[in-house]
Amino acid sequence: MRRWSFAKGHGTENDFVLIQDRESMLHIGEAEVRAICDRHAGIGADGLLRAVKAKHIEGWDGDGELWFMDYRNADGSIAEMCGNGLRVFARYLLDEGLASGPTLSIATRIGVLEATPYRDGRVRVSMGPVTVAADPVTVTRSTGETYTATHVEVGDPHAVSFEDDLEGLSLLVSPTWSPAEVFPKGVNLEFVRGVRDRHIAMRVFERGVGETRSCGTGTVAAAAAAALRDGHDFRLGSAQPVTYRVDVLGGSVEVELHAEQAFLTGPAVVVAHGELSLPEEL
Amino acid sequence: MRRWSFAKGHGTENDFVLIQDRESMLHIGEAEVRAICDRHAGIGADGLLRAVKAKHIEGWDGDGELWFMDYRNADGSIAEMCGNGLRVFARYLLDEGLASGPTLSIATRIGVLEATPYRDGRVRVSMGPVTVAADPVTVTRSTGETYTATHVEVGDPHAVSFEDDLEGLSLLVSPTWSPAEVFPKGVNLEFVRGVRDRHIAMRVFERGVGETRSCGTGTVAAAAAAALRDGHDFRLGSAQPVTYRVDVLGGSVEVELHAEQAFLTGPAVVVAHGELSLPEEL
Repeated sequence: MRRWSFAKGHGTENDFVLIQDRESMLHIGEAEVRAICDRHAGIGADGLLRAVKAKHIEGWDGDGELWFMDYRNADGSIAEMCGNGLRVFARYLLDEGLASGPTLSIATRIGVLEATPYRDGRVRVSMGPVTVAADPVTVTRSTGETYTATHVEVGDPHAVSFEDDLEGLSLLVSPTWSPAEVFPKGVNLEFVRGVRDRHIAMRVFERGVGETRSCGTGTVAAAAAAALRDGHDFRLGSAQPVTYRVDVLGGSVEVELHAEQAFLTGPAVVVAHGELSLPEEL
Repeated sequence: MRRWSFAKGHGTENDFVLIQDRESMLHIGEAEVRAICDRHAGIGADGLLRAVKAKHIEGWDGDGELWFMDYRNADGSIAEMCGNGLRVFARYLLDEGLASGPTLSIATRIGVLEATPYRDGRVRVSMGPVTVAADPVTVTRSTGETYTATHVEVGDPHAVSFEDDLEGLSLLVSPTWSPAEVFPKGVNLEFVRGVRDRHIAMRVFERGVGETRSCGTGTVAAAAAAALRDGHDFRLGSAQPVTYRVDVLGGSVEVELHAEQAFLTGPAVVVAHGELSLPEEL
């Protein structure tokens, strides 16, 4: 029986199991991730965040002593980045005494990102650059309805549509899009409604998952599309940064859009820690 | 911040958070249960099992030193009994050194029940008496299809239908039934297919929840209806006990039907233990 220390936490109800594996000794493969993230037979989470020293990550050529956020989806697959996960990861490093700072540098698959804990418990994280494509895409939902969407890249691909009746949406079935070649690896779909000045609400359909309570990169994509629609072109070097509040099903976050990159501020909570037992037959 | 020790476990993927509250000091109300059982913002489970000495339970007139299984549904409501929960509860008492066997007596809302741990990790628990009503009931699903069902009581109410195409069933929406007065508090619905001699498969729709991976009293109800259909009338004092294997989505259990009561044998696993933090604002 393998027994590992773990924590469980969430950011706007996007939840994670966290495991410290400093010297990369634990051999956490797909089967282990699936077993741990199974909501009935395991602990249950949207994904697993493994904390490992960056020097153990193949191809890492930066500071090897940084903590690397090795993010896996609940199905065991590797994901580049997760904004909600990064906040929870920072909270975990602080709680466990593994890092301190006014600002933490965290190694991720898209490079070194920064996390700043606030006194109110929220964490502000850098999210890397945001790119908005010139051409809109057309998204078709399973009901046959088509939407014109803005194509935004935040490390991962997004299609953002504006829709006044968010509550009336059924997001349960995966969409299609055209032109098909713009999203070769699938797309995350955000439906956005303006609430007031620089304040939006959204629902999100994550590729490979379905509707979720929250998606960090999705909130950034939604804020970027809304800012451009509202005439705040944050991409100009001369522009002031613009800040949007984004309400998701699982809570509320703030997105700052700068010319070079975006920052995401939101809650990050560790709800439990302990020891887990892995089934023998994995 | 309140911090409580907890464990998480499951029996055929019916999962529970377990909390020891020996002297009933913790004040675990509906809000606390909902927060802990929330699958994204909490630890997540189908229900919470509080281990408390029976003398603290109002109206308990038996041995006050027994451990009482105080079972709550994830929504905070109180439930009489849970066969999968009882196995996991016994496993927890054994793991924590709070009880020892060969057979444990456990206080529950339907009286004192017994749990016997097996060497292979399974636990056999007594489930109380089983009553089968003389008259069938008619169940109507949201699709408009009607089924003739056997009305079985195992501490809680069940309607059992035989259905060859289990895989083709959609169980997502709550049924209605007639006569309406037979199930004043709602009903759990089992669809059962014969696999071979004394071996059935089932899917279950739990009242107030929807389709679940498993339901302990449901497996007993299904076995009882199948036994009568197969000519094994276990209710006769002269009859031999009859044993059925019951496959559910979350695994497999064995049901022994005796004239006086039923026994359920199945897996019981503790997957994690640790300390949880409750949010301040409950």
